Amino acid sequence: MTGPGTLFGIGLGPGDPELITLKALRLLRGAPVVAAFAKPGRPGQALGIAAPHLLPEQQVLRLEYPFTTEVSLHDPRYARDMGDFYDQAADQVAQCLAEGRDVAVICEGDPFFYGSYMYLHDRLSHRFEAQVVPGITGMSGCWTQANAPITHGDDVLTVIPGTLLEDAMVSHLSRTQAAVFMKVGRNLPRIRTALIQAGLLERAILVERGTMAGAQVMPLAQWPQDRPAPYFTIVLVPGRQGVR
Amino acid sequence: MTGPGTLFGIGLGPGDPELITLKALRLLRGAPVVAAFAKPGRPGQALGIAAPHLLPEQQVLRLEYPFTTEVSLHDPRYARDMGDFYDQAADQVAQCLAEGRDVAVICEGDPFFYGSYMYLHDRLSHRFEAQVVPGITGMSGCWTQANAPITHGDDVLTVIPGTLLEDAMVSHLSRTQAAVFMKVGRNLPRIRTALIQAGLLERAILVERGTMAGAQVMPLAQWPQDRPAPYFTIVLVPGRQGVR
Repeated sequence: MTGPGTLFGIGLGPGDPELITLKALRLLRGAPVVAAFAKPGRPGQALGIAAPHLLPEQQVLRLEYPFTTEVSLHDPRYARDMGDFYDQAADQVAQCLAEGRDVAVICEGDPFFYGSYMYLHDRLSHRFEAQVVPGITGMSGCWTQANAPITHGDDVLTVIPGTLLEDAMVSHLSRTQAAVFMKVGRNLPRIRTALIQAGLLERAILVERGTMAGAQVMPLAQWPQDRPAPYFTIVLVPGRQGVR
Repeated sequence: MTGPGTLFGIGLGPGDPELITLKALRLLRGAPVVAAFAKPGRPGQALGIAAPHLLPEQQVLRLEYPFTTEVSLHDPRYARDMGDFYDQAADQVAQCLAEGRDVAVICEGDPFFYGSYMYLHDRLSHRFEAQVVPGITGMSGCWTQANAPITHGDDVLTVIPGTLLEDAMVSHLSRTQAAVFMKVGRNLPRIRTALIQAGLLERAILVERGTMAGAQVMPLAQWPQDRPAPYFTIVLVPGRQGVR
């Protein structure tokens, strides 16, 4: 009789499949079940990065989000629906683990840095053995793509979710040397306004699909105001220039 | 006649040699010259991580810092001496490149995130072809080692150099959900005082040698006040708890 399986939270890195680590690849290939969050009708970002590395005999478990259009984070339905969804996803993973099969939950970036894996980790790591493998974050991929050193010396870096209110963004920008905006998408107009207010628009860089096919880098000031930002977009404000 | 070589800035990740990426390994092994900053009389952190991956025929170029004891960042001699040192290091690397040999400059963590590689990049990338490979940051290695998700949802993360003044630290801590202190070393007493003032000492975690042999994780409140922090130490304040 075999014991329960191990839960692996595997960071795949920022997008380029070659930016996976040796450790992530070893544990990914060793797991009979590979699980990933994905939107209905979409291939899924993590599954796309992992695709070149998967073996034919591995079972893929898609954990599909309940809605394709976003419900506002501030709508009470959001927390309730998502909580129910993560409960059900955790049940699916737990069933595999209870049957003695290891499950590798794959995610883009780093699992413990804004990663959805932690919703499973929180629900399962007290019941099953769990091991997390860090990955290169999306923001590291973006500042590398932009050829823009982000911090050096005594620079402070502030990572700001694009969901924040404009005043809060301006307040953070006024106190930091370097900044990264995550969750840009439809929040781009507010991010732009905050950067203008902080006098930083000229230093801001928009990076789309960093390290992935079709990556684009552009000064934010040149991005057309009415063009929506794609989902995999990050806005960077590199720290003090001239590191000599 | 061959053209000049290519400069590679290779992020090796947080310390565990298995946390190198496939891309970093491919480019590292393909370079006839491997260069790394190191302190005199020490093996060097980057060289230690890369050691299991190097091939016997590769030439190792040690770029040795001019002093073993730290001169204060605020001492004018520091900037001048370091500037001269980086100029000389860049000359050594440039000589190899001019001879048509590729040079892989290896560094722990991510080259563009507080990495010393950028002092070479700034001096050489306008004269030679340069390519940077991102790596997993030391802080990602540390929060993974601590089993501590650092951010989720709308959390702001502030990365604070331990060299800052206490008031500046308290100000940053009062406005962020999650924090990471870099460059801890002899700045630990001031970091501790700032965390106490911000009411955050109980949430702070000290991680020493994250992902490396001999890694240690400890609540900062339990760290003896008179024990110096080793060089590879990071202090974490994870974001809002309970991600359900």
